[in-house]
Amino acid sequence: MKQDAPVSQTPTVSELRRERERAEITGRIMDVARRMFVRDGYEAVTLRKIARAIEYSPAAIYQYFKSKEDLVKAISEKDQQELLADILACMQLTNPQERLVEMARAYAQWGVAHPNHYLLQLVPPFAWEKRKSTPQQQVPAPILQEALGALYETVKEGINLGRFNEKYKDPSLVAATLWAGIHGVIMLEITMGKDEWARIDNPEISFEDRFLTLKEVFSDGFLKEPSPAVKPKNRGRKAKK
Amino acid sequence: MKQDAPVSQTPTVSELRRERERAEITGRIMDVARRMFVRDGYEAVTLRKIARAIEYSPAAIYQYFKSKEDLVKAISEKDQQELLADILACMQLTNPQERLVEMARAYAQWGVAHPNHYLLQLVPPFAWEKRKSTPQQQVPAPILQEALGALYETVKEGINLGRFNEKYKDPSLVAATLWAGIHGVIMLEITMGKDEWARIDNPEISFEDRFLTLKEVFSDGFLKEPSPAVKPKNRGRKAKK
Repeated sequence: MKQDAPVSQTPTVSELRRERERAEITGRIMDVARRMFVRDGYEAVTLRKIARAIEYSPAAIYQYFKSKEDLVKAISEKDQQELLADILACMQLTNPQERLVEMARAYAQWGVAHPNHYLLQLVPPFAWEKRKSTPQQQVPAPILQEALGALYETVKEGINLGRFNEKYKDPSLVAATLWAGIHGVIMLEITMGKDEWARIDNPEISFEDRFLTLKEVFSDGFLKEPSPAVKPKNRGRKAKK
Repeated sequence: MKQDAPVSQTPTVSELRRERERAEITGRIMDVARRMFVRDGYEAVTLRKIARAIEYSPAAIYQYFKSKEDLVKAISEKDQQELLADILACMQLTNPQERLVEMARAYAQWGVAHPNHYLLQLVPPFAWEKRKSTPQQQVPAPILQEALGALYETVKEGINLGRFNEKYKDPSLVAATLWAGIHGVIMLEITMGKDEWARIDNPEISFEDRFLTLKEVFSDGFLKEPSPAVKPKNRGRKAKK
């Protein structure tokens, strides 16, 4: 409606510069904090320690984040937006089978890249642990819901186009199975990826090997014709029109 | 070696009775405690509360379990032994495909029946949480290793017998994928089974539906011929010769 209205408040050059600086600094704080949380655990990391790590005064950090919870929320939000952007980029692929493979890859890459975030979002705190929760656990996961919605729509399209074997008629069931499979591969990588006993007699096997085996068996089992091969140059964000 | 040696100390009738009573009482304490841990969380439950729930004096409970940690250890051990017995019972099935299905079913049933134990064993505490661990987290999971070993041997046998499609040659990779798939289905059931949004547009779908879909797609994808149908009367412990 207001598209023709003149922009009333053009930011000044110094405002733009401040804005850019702010984005740079908060980005830097988040990157360092994310690494520290992963390495030392949520409880052990304080804003003061993060400040020291990037050679800031604690007061300077408080200009950008009021509390550790605030900082974690910002990191979580940013990481989730990244996942969703990757998944929505896959939606541009016209072939639903290919789209499913690329979505799964985006999700898997995101999961192993953000193991703590992944666990926090996907595995609520243990009933046997004191229910001492970090901020994310209180909010639902709307972005995850959106990602699941995209998965569901893609499966439905594939079924409607007759790409799935006849016995797989229910998109919910198929989507849930695809999600469970990839979730399982990610979870085992995150929680036991370094435990030799859990690698079942072959410690040489990589996460990529496991991802591709799951992709193979799912496409062999679900589809009438095998899904297109994964193009290594065409992953995630770089989805083509 | 010593099998022919005479039994030197035949227990007296009263010793046998005391032994039986002890087993009954510890079993009862463990059953009540397991329910309370699941319902109220590990931290909230004390030996004193458990004693009250079964109308014992705290002193009486301490005769059987020195501490809450001791009690949890005993529960964990008992539950794991049950899983392993179920899985080893499956080993008696001569058809490796059928054996895989029954093992998966035993594992899945055990997982959803003991959700907290399952999480504790399969998902180490979050890096973002204070690493305040319950006893199990410090010990490795030898029984789980044994179960995985049985899975691996079964897959290897199936591959050697030519039951798998040619491209699936590596038993580690196949076993890991089977494990990941069923792990994912169990995990999603345990952690989000009650969240409607996570049921992807169809809250009517049961855990059994999801288990069977995974079983279908895995046998369609991995095997040359579909695996035998699951016989509802022949599950887990009741494996036939």
